[in-house]
Amino acid sequence: MTLTGKMLIGQHATTGNREAIRAVNPATDTPMEPAYPGGDREHVAQACALAWAAFDGYRETSLEARAAFLEAIAAHIEALGDELIERAVAETGLPRARIQGERGRTCGQLRTFARTVRAGEWLDVRVDPAQPQRQPLPRPDLRQRHIALGPVAVFGASNFPLAFSVAGGDTASALAAGCPVVVKAHGAHPGTSELVGRAVAQAIQACGLPEGVFSLLYGSGREVGIALVTDPRIKAVGFTGSRSGGVALTQAAQARPEPIPVYAEMSSINPVYLFPAALAARGEGLAKGFVGSLTQGAGQFCTNPGLVIGVQGPALDRFISTASELLPTCAAQTMLTPGIFKAFDSGVTALTEHARVSAKGLAAEGPNQGQAHLFVTPAKDFLANEQLQAEVFGAASLIVVCASNEEMHQVSEHLEGQLTATLHLDDDDLPSAKALLPVLERKAGRLLVNGWPTGVEVCDAMVHGGPFPATSDSRSTSVGTAAIQRFLRPVCYQDFPDALLPDALQHGNPLLLRRLLDGQREA
Amino acid sequence: MTLTGKMLIGQHATTGNREAIRAVNPATDTPMEPAYPGGDREHVAQACALAWAAFDGYRETSLEARAAFLEAIAAHIEALGDELIERAVAETGLPRARIQGERGRTCGQLRTFARTVRAGEWLDVRVDPAQPQRQPLPRPDLRQRHIALGPVAVFGASNFPLAFSVAGGDTASALAAGCPVVVKAHGAHPGTSELVGRAVAQAIQACGLPEGVFSLLYGSGREVGIALVTDPRIKAVGFTGSRSGGVALTQAAQARPEPIPVYAEMSSINPVYLFPAALAARGEGLAKGFVGSLTQGAGQFCTNPGLVIGVQGPALDRFISTASELLPTCAAQTMLTPGIFKAFDSGVTALTEHARVSAKGLAAEGPNQGQAHLFVTPAKDFLANEQLQAEVFGAASLIVVCASNEEMHQVSEHLEGQLTATLHLDDDDLPSAKALLPVLERKAGRLLVNGWPTGVEVCDAMVHGGPFPATSDSRSTSVGTAAIQRFLRPVCYQDFPDALLPDALQHGNPLLLRRLLDGQREA
Repeated sequence: MTLTGKMLIGQHATTGNREAIRAVNPATDTPMEPAYPGGDREHVAQACALAWAAFDGYRETSLEARAAFLEAIAAHIEALGDELIERAVAETGLPRARIQGERGRTCGQLRTFARTVRAGEWLDVRVDPAQPQRQPLPRPDLRQRHIALGPVAVFGASNFPLAFSVAGGDTASALAAGCPVVVKAHGAHPGTSELVGRAVAQAIQACGLPEGVFSLLYGSGREVGIALVTDPRIKAVGFTGSRSGGVALTQAAQARPEPIPVYAEMSSINPVYLFPAALAARGEGLAKGFVGSLTQGAGQFCTNPGLVIGVQGPALDRFISTASELLPTCAAQTMLTPGIFKAFDSGVTALTEHARVSAKGLAAEGPNQGQAHLFVTPAKDFLANEQLQAEVFGAASLIVVCASNEEMHQVSEHLEGQLTATLHLDDDDLPSAKALLPVLERKAGRLLVNGWPTGVEVCDAMVHGGPFPATSDSRSTSVGTAAIQRFLRPVCYQDFPDALLPDALQHGNPLLLRRLLDGQREA
Repeated sequence: MTLTGKMLIGQHATTGNREAIRAVNPATDTPMEPAYPGGDREHVAQACALAWAAFDGYRETSLEARAAFLEAIAAHIEALGDELIERAVAETGLPRARIQGERGRTCGQLRTFARTVRAGEWLDVRVDPAQPQRQPLPRPDLRQRHIALGPVAVFGASNFPLAFSVAGGDTASALAAGCPVVVKAHGAHPGTSELVGRAVAQAIQACGLPEGVFSLLYGSGREVGIALVTDPRIKAVGFTGSRSGGVALTQAAQARPEPIPVYAEMSSINPVYLFPAALAARGEGLAKGFVGSLTQGAGQFCTNPGLVIGVQGPALDRFISTASELLPTCAAQTMLTPGIFKAFDSGVTALTEHARVSAKGLAAEGPNQGQAHLFVTPAKDFLANEQLQAEVFGAASLIVVCASNEEMHQVSEHLEGQLTATLHLDDDDLPSAKALLPVLERKAGRLLVNGWPTGVEVCDAMVHGGPFPATSDSRSTSVGTAAIQRFLRPVCYQDFPDALLPDALQHGNPLLLRRLLDGQREA
């Protein structure tokens, strides 16, 4: 398949007319072919018009048809074969095995949402039958289901070129909910985006769906993004990226005549707590695990452990010295883009002004390689300086040394919202951990014991979300099957004749859903 | 019980230091005792500090304890007896039977949320057990529950002094979710608010809960409201009132360093569609029903039928002439406050400039009485003039005469978001209704067939919500048990030992919840 540099407006391959995006192979610092000219407001309007035209039909496709479509997308992505893997590796500098694993995750995610669509729990069907004899007033027949919000704008992330990009979690969950999707491709991997975008478009054709269910746009500046978020036909936004980017999109969405929800996953430093008994029993093992999690994938994960918190003493000292001995053996790794490398570099420089450097990884041997950094600071400095909790995207972490358990609580209350919080503990630590838990529940979307935050499972129970600024909406998750709920709203039907009711609400329950019927969940 | 004019900051009765609110009996235009001096930022800060201190404990009360608390509130409200009824009648001008019914609704609502809390479905427990043997990577044990968002600010509404006020739907659902509540009383019924507020405070004491679970503040200007919404300890807002008020609160909440969700129920004109066969078969009955719904409670319902849509012809003419014959027999009714009466009057005057007056009710015979108005306009004028779809709160409605079925669709697409849309139809109308349904599903939260929108049942299937400007968040309902979901967020626990897990997530399932276990709903 030859890359064309074209956008996809429905089934139509279209060349943009604005400044072009060009991928850069970060490992060699060489620009890649082809160029991807950006779209303008008119292209956005065309994609949104198609999405709007497709919406009413697509949201009423049967559960089976929609599930089959999600499975077809997975199959078409797999059919891209090695071309996709090679292009993604070249555009991102990520290892081949990682990209292969990410393809598996992406296709698995699409199939998981297919299962979720078929199960139909997301419809949240509630039926309160009529009570014509009730006093003082009869009760009408009331039935609720959830329907899709409308066309969704998705902004691909740089750090997961497949799993959080064109056909990633936001797109999969929006399509599962019945929402057409208009993707703005991330400039870091336009070729990967084109390949995946074409796979989605092929699945649409194979499934006989309206073309407006999916479009893919490029744009180097803010024009396309802002036009998308402010188009009146767009009814929700999914975004993974920087805090400033997420906040800007949220503000644009709120300033519309009709404000819309934005699900922005933005900024998290993912505190890791080291409790005394665990630290005493296996401080060196913890240091090893920590350095592994910190440097994995050049630290380019939203869940990278950017903050370690412990109480001062010999056990914490040993942890710090072990980690500081291990880090200098870690090779510098190619980061995703020259821009991300530059931001990492200035983030590290800024931290160096406020905290002590305890260790560095091996120096860079090629372009755009991030050198891992470990910092240490006393808790009182951390509490006094907001800059110390700014996210540095990459393999940098700060160890906060608390004078006491009370100071550890203070540090915890001082934290901004997080995607994750991790507790390393042994049995003797349970009382202290239990005391800290209410604070951490308020601060983070996912709490882990004796693990590392960098793996995010796609399953029913996952929460990849959390209070601001981890995300713009703590009531949601962007990973796992509950992500579908972001793109739905309830509608109630009162005294409808069966002939006018959607399948999900008909008296005979043809979809065999477990409804909440007159206050009781059906078996 | 003597009214004191004091706020309640936790269990502490406190006199404000700002300009006082005083209720006005709208039927006689006389100010009522006592005066209610407003609070300032400092009172807000005190209430929020108490709410924050109470939060972690209150959100972990057992399901039974929390349900018993909601039931205790209902019992204490009922124990207020006739004093509550008389004060509410005097402050609102609403008939005694209506206030009695509303008390029943309010207490029933609290008891319904008690049942919902006990059933525990709102916890949405999901368990994905560990798969240590899975290839290529093991799966950790992942468990999700929902927890309360944090302290909630509730702004009472004028038009339901009990059911949408101090212990109304917002308060009941927030308390059910585990959120402490700080209420800003509506200036229209401060005495009713004090009585109900004291009942809540008594229930807190009787149940041995922390005092910060509930506070009640007064304030005549914007100071208290804005201080509440911008206090960092407040994590969500419930509001029922005007569009401008709701938009202002939403903007203030979005401008915070940590933005928070606002559930504002604002503005709706509730279109009623008259389909041809129904109109031909029973146009006069429909006209009678319409006039009844329009004038009920002086039209002071969010779901008042402010817009009627039909296709031109003799049947629609008959409907208009019947309604126009009935309306002049309808007495003018006392409105809730002099301010609401004045706003109704200018709304009617504005409409008179743009649409033809088809009929008026009887003229006012006392102060603050709203004279019902019925307007008629051709669809092309409605489409050309946005002002014709501005809500006029009170007994005013506009009939839009469409030239064709197509024009009816155009009018429908032109509508802003609504709480309800009503279809009057017979069997022969089913095809046209079916064709219009996708538009109405996009526009409204509740769709009714052959009824009137002015009754809002408190049940599981109710949706009292809808796209902007009906509400600020179409993903939610402010009436019915699903309202609890507005004040919750998911948290995931990974590889937690049982000793550290909350009851709802423990391996033995001690709460006997129907969990989503490894992708299957437990029976």
